[in-house]
Amino acid sequence: MNKIKLGVVGLGTVGSSCIKLITENLSLLKSRTGSDLEIVGISARNKVAKRQFDVSKYKWFDNPVDMIEEIDVLVELIGGADGIALQLTKTALSKGVAVVTANKAMIAHHGYDLAVLAEENNASLLFEASVAGTVPVIEAARQGLSANNISGFYGILNGTCNFILSQMRETGRDFPEVLKEAQDMGYAEADPSFDVDGVDAGHKVAILAAMCFGSRPDFNGVTMTGIADLSQVDSDLGVDLGYKIKLIGSARKLDGRILQTVEPCFVPVDCPFSSIENAYNAVMFDCDYSESPMMSGLGAGGDATASAVIQDVIAIARGNKNYTFGVPAPALTKNKRIDPSEVCSRFYMRFSVIDKVGVMADISSILRDHNISIETMFQIGSGSDDEVYVALITHDTLREDVDAARDLIARLNVVSGEPSIIRIEDKL
Amino acid sequence: MNKIKLGVVGLGTVGSSCIKLITENLSLLKSRTGSDLEIVGISARNKVAKRQFDVSKYKWFDNPVDMIEEIDVLVELIGGADGIALQLTKTALSKGVAVVTANKAMIAHHGYDLAVLAEENNASLLFEASVAGTVPVIEAARQGLSANNISGFYGILNGTCNFILSQMRETGRDFPEVLKEAQDMGYAEADPSFDVDGVDAGHKVAILAAMCFGSRPDFNGVTMTGIADLSQVDSDLGVDLGYKIKLIGSARKLDGRILQTVEPCFVPVDCPFSSIENAYNAVMFDCDYSESPMMSGLGAGGDATASAVIQDVIAIARGNKNYTFGVPAPALTKNKRIDPSEVCSRFYMRFSVIDKVGVMADISSILRDHNISIETMFQIGSGSDDEVYVALITHDTLREDVDAARDLIARLNVVSGEPSIIRIEDKL
Repeated sequence: MNKIKLGVVGLGTVGSSCIKLITENLSLLKSRTGSDLEIVGISARNKVAKRQFDVSKYKWFDNPVDMIEEIDVLVELIGGADGIALQLTKTALSKGVAVVTANKAMIAHHGYDLAVLAEENNASLLFEASVAGTVPVIEAARQGLSANNISGFYGILNGTCNFILSQMRETGRDFPEVLKEAQDMGYAEADPSFDVDGVDAGHKVAILAAMCFGSRPDFNGVTMTGIADLSQVDSDLGVDLGYKIKLIGSARKLDGRILQTVEPCFVPVDCPFSSIENAYNAVMFDCDYSESPMMSGLGAGGDATASAVIQDVIAIARGNKNYTFGVPAPALTKNKRIDPSEVCSRFYMRFSVIDKVGVMADISSILRDHNISIETMFQIGSGSDDEVYVALITHDTLREDVDAARDLIARLNVVSGEPSIIRIEDKL
Repeated sequence: MNKIKLGVVGLGTVGSSCIKLITENLSLLKSRTGSDLEIVGISARNKVAKRQFDVSKYKWFDNPVDMIEEIDVLVELIGGADGIALQLTKTALSKGVAVVTANKAMIAHHGYDLAVLAEENNASLLFEASVAGTVPVIEAARQGLSANNISGFYGILNGTCNFILSQMRETGRDFPEVLKEAQDMGYAEADPSFDVDGVDAGHKVAILAAMCFGSRPDFNGVTMTGIADLSQVDSDLGVDLGYKIKLIGSARKLDGRILQTVEPCFVPVDCPFSSIENAYNAVMFDCDYSESPMMSGLGAGGDATASAVIQDVIAIARGNKNYTFGVPAPALTKNKRIDPSEVCSRFYMRFSVIDKVGVMADISSILRDHNISIETMFQIGSGSDDEVYVALITHDTLREDVDAARDLIARLNVVSGEPSIIRIEDKL
């Protein structure tokens, strides 16, 4: 039986789950690949850290570069866009060693260069685990939907944010309190900024967009808005209006230009994304021959991520060769960007105002002056005596007009606090 | 550029869409495969039938067997378990020609023999389009979830039935009326029995089960109940109780034995299957490392099916080789079956009864005598003066006990018409 020699670098939650999976499911993996998978080396920053498996069973490398000569596949689970992860990946690929990684930051930032390097050296570079955890969305874009022009996708791509938003809605608590709980439960990092600011989802948007469009990953082209400024009031009013707030990462290709965004959106309560709660992820694709295919599943966690990592190892063991981003690396396009301000959507706007005669008229006339047509507008008590909320939903309108109107309305004497603007994602 | 020569046999809706797709997306397909796809022959029963494309542009074969010497990939879209489709597929595979097919009946009945033949001749046999149309569930079981022990799946696998059930619930009309509408709209065949009796879904269950479990397709082991006997009353009462009726095709592997069923089930209105309406299909998998991954999309129609067919062609053009059912054909297991009567579930039962003192007591005591514990039981008007409905939901109980109790209750003098029994699928 053909032997596939693996080196696993980075032995945190995901690395440990990968080793557990290979150990537990070894005979299954043999029958599915016709190969014997053997972990011939492991490495991590700290050899003596407490781990879920017996480190002494495997050959330890203090310097992971040293294992490259001995392996067929490097499983890179260190993380970080640059540093050791990047250096190690480059070294492996340049020596024709396949790399499987869960490292979304590295692929989002350096995916194009790495794809060129991989294909020049006839080495596979696979990263299913980098987007949507266990859900094989990279595979879907590369293979399952490959007969289609994929014109875009919508995703719930960050489990931490989705958990926080689900909890805010269900428990009626505000962001800081739910974040604290998420941290206590291990759903959010001590420094949660990568997740809650939308950067993590942004990495995933850049990777999946490249795979869908056959373009170079363009992380700097992702416009990101996080969830830290969301208010419980808007989550509640959303429910009253028939919406849930979800952090949506999406990309669209229009006339050769690409729009990439991460932002909290209202999605209809009866749309398929509405039942994707807590740590679950989902992606829906826009295709020319396949109508709205959607995939969902657990987006994070050791076992779910290991499932994605090891299936990439299986693809390599089976001898399957694919272009890193679906088309040959030199053919990956460099596209112009679409700025979100150019795009039309419906928007939800909410202002805290002093309940005086003429407030609605003041707001409406500013909106009119910015060509913003109002679909619904209402006033509702805020719980405080002299303050009320004015909330409205616009017809399709340009983001830049909404932002300009918001700035003027915020300056009205009767308006207090920061206005809320949430885009309504009607494509779902 | 490497050339891949295709023969397309069967030129109905799907065949025509395949030819349209290859024509429209040819440059995309070239960039994704590095190969030039060329249709070098076409064939169908009737050359002069009206079609969406110009038949004269392609070389016509009256006998499709004649094209096999000239092609690399046979695209088989004739349909039918046996006959020409099977003969042609065998001839192609035995000559080392790859076969891509949407033919679920053929794969469900002859999948094992064909897999052996394919692998002996080093020829690919791919059939993504045979299950769930555009949704790459075969690919998911073979690749995306391949690191997992897959212990089962639940699917909405027949778009015709799902359309009829959605319409019954939304419009309050009974089965025969909605079926007629579905036929008029082209969603159901003139002879709808294959769909509404659950046979089509049964084929798909057998194929997907083989792929998930590494077992031989066992269509004869699928227990099938269709939707033709469903009553509008139960659809309405289901909604009141928080359920929708869906035709669920599912398979489970327990202690080496396999359960395969197709039956209408109650699924909770807030579960992910609840939003899968009309012609959409969905599959949710049970895995050891990946929690409840789910995929959905359009399950039928020319374009959606062509999307699945052509992505299989792309996989072949890319040179990817996979075991037909995920493991080598000779290793496919022949498993004992689990009879649905052995399995515990909650059940909904509904009886039409004459509204007399003691009716509830009569029914309850029969249930007690069969060890059936009642979770909820209520009586509701039927619209007729002296008849009412008694409906109940059981706790977990054996199917065989429910069936025995139903038979006894049906014989009570106060009970009229056929009792309804609908299993509640709590795993979703």
